[in-house]
Amino acid sequence: MADYVFGVDIGGTTVKLGLFDVSGNVLDKWEIPTRTGDSGRNILPDIAGSVRAKMDEKGIAEKDVAGVGVGAPGPVDGSGIIHKAVNLGWGEMNLKEELGALLGGMRVEGGNDANVAALGEMWKGGGQGYRDLVAVTLGTGVGGGIIIGGRILTGATGSGGEIGHIHVEDHESEACGCGNYGCLEEYASATGITRLARRRLQASSQDSVLREGEVSAKTVFDAVKAGDALAVEVAKQFGEYLGKGLAVIAGVVNPEIFVIGGGVSKAGEVLFEYIRPAFDRTVFHGCKNTKFALATLGNDAGIYGAARMVLD
Amino acid sequence: MADYVFGVDIGGTTVKLGLFDVSGNVLDKWEIPTRTGDSGRNILPDIAGSVRAKMDEKGIAEKDVAGVGVGAPGPVDGSGIIHKAVNLGWGEMNLKEELGALLGGMRVEGGNDANVAALGEMWKGGGQGYRDLVAVTLGTGVGGGIIIGGRILTGATGSGGEIGHIHVEDHESEACGCGNYGCLEEYASATGITRLARRRLQASSQDSVLREGEVSAKTVFDAVKAGDALAVEVAKQFGEYLGKGLAVIAGVVNPEIFVIGGGVSKAGEVLFEYIRPAFDRTVFHGCKNTKFALATLGNDAGIYGAARMVLD
Repeated sequence: MADYVFGVDIGGTTVKLGLFDVSGNVLDKWEIPTRTGDSGRNILPDIAGSVRAKMDEKGIAEKDVAGVGVGAPGPVDGSGIIHKAVNLGWGEMNLKEELGALLGGMRVEGGNDANVAALGEMWKGGGQGYRDLVAVTLGTGVGGGIIIGGRILTGATGSGGEIGHIHVEDHESEACGCGNYGCLEEYASATGITRLARRRLQASSQDSVLREGEVSAKTVFDAVKAGDALAVEVAKQFGEYLGKGLAVIAGVVNPEIFVIGGGVSKAGEVLFEYIRPAFDRTVFHGCKNTKFALATLGNDAGIYGAARMVLD
Repeated sequence: MADYVFGVDIGGTTVKLGLFDVSGNVLDKWEIPTRTGDSGRNILPDIAGSVRAKMDEKGIAEKDVAGVGVGAPGPVDGSGIIHKAVNLGWGEMNLKEELGALLGGMRVEGGNDANVAALGEMWKGGGQGYRDLVAVTLGTGVGGGIIIGGRILTGATGSGGEIGHIHVEDHESEACGCGNYGCLEEYASATGITRLARRRLQASSQDSVLREGEVSAKTVFDAVKAGDALAVEVAKQFGEYLGKGLAVIAGVVNPEIFVIGGGVSKAGEVLFEYIRPAFDRTVFHGCKNTKFALATLGNDAGIYGAARMVLD
């Protein structure tokens, strides 16, 4: 019975690594730079080297390691193959086999970073105690990860849980980053909230603290908490889109809980006041009791979830 | 190694039963009435009796039966407990244990009828060869079943795949059967198509064959095939709602294929001409290649899927 497991979260600029015991206690965590040059060919060797170095440092033998889990920014299918990771310079890459070979046959599991983070929140974060959950990351974009029966819902092409790009608005004139018009991400991400606020500021001459200084998701929710009427209207609009979107997702996969993370979630529980009305109004009655919680692991969700993948 | 398996599909008026070999060849199928009186207390004993009688008739010993799978009209959770089946007079009922006891400890598996039918279409119907699929039943209502990795996605409260009640229209004045406003079922079911046609006939004085005789999903699609301009507009509206709805579902669970069944699907492949434009326009690019097929098992999908549940 192995005592240790590694979790690795590959980002566009840094790779986060964690050493855990098999109960999920983090024993050490550190970062190395992501060398994306040369088609990203150094990334996996760098990770293997760093894992090996940590094992030497701690005096951990190979037989004591259950394996290495890896989250990466791109669609990863059920067999651990990532299909194009633009930010890393990778085309198709068999994470499981290639990193496994570099680690002398150690067990490796790979997953999409958002999905892996969802698994981390289930294991040790805001979704602890649940087996069916949807994690929603409200950051620069909107990401998602779906966990069913304790396992990642990967989907046929690794696009399971890509909830930022579900269509929620027929009358949008600006394209989303993905090329479509009216994606959830255009209204519920930090960028989206900023845009909703700018549009509302331009469309009226209503007083608002947002007319002075920076307009961002943070300043909008700070203004909401201060009772700024225009900011409250922006929050309502955000909550209407997100609440309806999550209601649809609930009707499809019927999770026990939504775990909301990402930069926007720093606003706190106030978010739920704006999300729940539209959710409650439009959700299928069998899903009315779906819970909402905040993510708690922040940027560490990825290393936790990556480690957890190996323990299945 | 057992040779046989039974599949049972409990409906509000009849129970369909099938005897299969473990490769999925149907050896016999028959029906018994559903005795819903007296809180439905006779239904499971009737099924057990009918299974026993068939075993006697065919000279099949208990050791040769892998088990009995049952689909029932209500939310069934992962442990085989059905939570209220209004049409059968049942409150909460442990299908797996109660029918298992009546059958002397034989293995029993239970699932929601729409989910079980989806599994049947995967095994021997329009979804053969796929492991990740969404079955969509366009009948009086809109039902759905989601299969991920060859298994039913049950959901936390047995409401997984309840896609008829995802919210697709903010400006609806008539309530859906579920009590909400603007559910997919209000536009994509047989009843919904009829209503869309009636609304359009009332709103204009445009010529249409639909002005004479019955207005139904069948007459609408017959008129579409005959080139009736008003019917084509109705089909476009239907396809716009359903195509956008399926695009959202694709973005959430990323199936390989949608398998479309139910009475409306008798219109045939012409349906896809109306569904695909809105689907292609709004779906996440990673899911653009999702396939569409027609269901092929008709009313037998339930007994096939029920039998398949036992073979996992």
